[in-house]
Amino acid sequence: MQQPPKTLYLDDANNAVVILDQTRLPAEVTYVPLTTSEDVWCAIKDLLVRGAPAIGVTAALGLYVHMKRFVQEKNPETQAFFIEANRVGVYLDTSRPTAVNLQWATKVMRDAIAPYANQIEEETYNTKKSPAYAQPAVLLQILRDTAMQIFNDDINNNRSIGQHGATLLKPGMGILTHCNAGALATAGYGTALSPVYCAHEQGMPLRVYADETRHVLQGARLTAFELRTAGVDVTLLCDNMAATVMANGWVDIIFVGADRVAANGDTANKIGTLGVAILAKHYGIPFYVCAPFSTIDTTTPTGREIIIEERDPTEITDLWYAQPMAPAGVNVFNPSFDVTPAALITGYITEKGIVAPPF
Amino acid sequence: MQQPPKTLYLDDANNAVVILDQTRLPAEVTYVPLTTSEDVWCAIKDLLVRGAPAIGVTAALGLYVHMKRFVQEKNPETQAFFIEANRVGVYLDTSRPTAVNLQWATKVMRDAIAPYANQIEEETYNTKKSPAYAQPAVLLQILRDTAMQIFNDDINNNRSIGQHGATLLKPGMGILTHCNAGALATAGYGTALSPVYCAHEQGMPLRVYADETRHVLQGARLTAFELRTAGVDVTLLCDNMAATVMANGWVDIIFVGADRVAANGDTANKIGTLGVAILAKHYGIPFYVCAPFSTIDTTTPTGREIIIEERDPTEITDLWYAQPMAPAGVNVFNPSFDVTPAALITGYITEKGIVAPPF
Repeated sequence: MQQPPKTLYLDDANNAVVILDQTRLPAEVTYVPLTTSEDVWCAIKDLLVRGAPAIGVTAALGLYVHMKRFVQEKNPETQAFFIEANRVGVYLDTSRPTAVNLQWATKVMRDAIAPYANQIEEETYNTKKSPAYAQPAVLLQILRDTAMQIFNDDINNNRSIGQHGATLLKPGMGILTHCNAGALATAGYGTALSPVYCAHEQGMPLRVYADETRHVLQGARLTAFELRTAGVDVTLLCDNMAATVMANGWVDIIFVGADRVAANGDTANKIGTLGVAILAKHYGIPFYVCAPFSTIDTTTPTGREIIIEERDPTEITDLWYAQPMAPAGVNVFNPSFDVTPAALITGYITEKGIVAPPF
Repeated sequence: MQQPPKTLYLDDANNAVVILDQTRLPAEVTYVPLTTSEDVWCAIKDLLVRGAPAIGVTAALGLYVHMKRFVQEKNPETQAFFIEANRVGVYLDTSRPTAVNLQWATKVMRDAIAPYANQIEEETYNTKKSPAYAQPAVLLQILRDTAMQIFNDDINNNRSIGQHGATLLKPGMGILTHCNAGALATAGYGTALSPVYCAHEQGMPLRVYADETRHVLQGARLTAFELRTAGVDVTLLCDNMAATVMANGWVDIIFVGADRVAANGDTANKIGTLGVAILAKHYGIPFYVCAPFSTIDTTTPTGREIIIEERDPTEITDLWYAQPMAPAGVNVFNPSFDVTPAALITGYITEKGIVAPPF
């Protein structure tokens, strides 16, 4: 049974978070060991690892790896351990300030040891000695357990989403997806691609159509790559060909991921998702958003409140070409995301089952 | 009053068809004189000139330029003139075999002198002498008049389409277009962009949104370039951003060109047009096809009979990137065109007015 590529793992022997360098895909499959917090910071900042869940897991494991080395090299007392853990957490948070999963993961890590910090504060105020129940080795084990919990929870959530989603699939079906919400965005099977992998494990023949996903081609570079690696039948197309693929009757169901789901079900996801949803409605094709419950933001009432980041115009005008792709100085509209209204969404495939809004 | 760039013109003094080299756009504006039939053949073959009407006009003027040089250099009798004109016409037809306007234009040119050929055939069978009414200089003038007629008819058709289309525009409107059906595809103002230029001439402020148009970016490289050259407010976007631009309420009307219109109104045009039409319907935005009557093919009953060419997969996987854009060997779907059903088309803007099917 072929598997999608492993995005990241903890290498205890070498005390490293090992990640697949996604900036080199699909040309080269290169695993890079991250052994310092600076390594982790740069890997997140420079997109060697991307996808909200994968970033969170990398930061959690990275914090643990850093603290293990810190203990080995500095043999600190407990208070110095706390100070360093907080410093590194704050530092890692700055590698990608808009990534909610990143700040969430470093907070979970720090919260796991925080009760000990409060408890020892008075005891060690004068002595600076570590009490037995809060020796750095004990705290380190808590950090490792917490990071591995985050890692395994992601894998398990992926699998649950996949198992629920796979119940919608039948042999021979055609599935269209946009961008990359696959294994490469997570520690496990991904979100939108997890139903495909779960059905593929059962030996179900499927055809996947992958939108290349302008502006930076996550569909071509990542989705097509990981599905091929797993031995899934995948066909790559330009975004503007999705309508023809649907008109030809080749698509039975659509799975996409989500960056944020508002309380009313409006869903922000990679630019182009909205267009796919409208085409799906026109052709009567079910359109599912695959995302863990943590993606649902009940504090945002509707999609209107979601602020859409615009990216650098040169991604459209100059990204690839030896010569410029567009006239110098041309106005460019380059949003990162769009918002698909809940009315266009058939359902939401979560780790707890398939649901419909309001939540 | 700024104008769009001139695509091509006849330079009598240097006996050349001068064309704007579109392969160098938008980085460089370079005009190239075509002085031999080989120059013309290569310019069409290598896409220095593209767009069905522009190719037809280039071939007609090119045939004239070739025959003028032939007469100057060889001083032929009438019969040798006919033989050469036929040879060159057949030769130019092979530069882009699927371009209907190309074969149409060389046929019009040869038909213009054919009556003389029939008439003199018996007279000169033995003497090989040219009768006065069919001297090569006379025939040459007929060829020049015919080529200029094709050239001017294209300009006038463009302008008529533009004037009819401009009646649909009001100050401040937003217009979305796909691919390039502008000045650079014709000898004049183009088809889909002609209403914009006609309204712009009248001083009407307008905003144009240009889809970049994967796979080879005619929207980014050509449409954005020519609109900017003419001083029209244009914003470039990736194809998958069109839905967001419409959702934002920025688009009031859509103009596209056509490669072929079937008898029932189904329209083949550059890949991505179908998707734009479905989005337009969803948002209640009028969607117009701009094309001369010659594009309507009454021998093709519906869009189902139109055969869609597929292009080289490397346009999707390898066209631009320093490194591959997609995994080696991935399946690719890369159609050139799609077919938009007549039901999605608000109307057809032709040189004779705005019409609705059936024709």
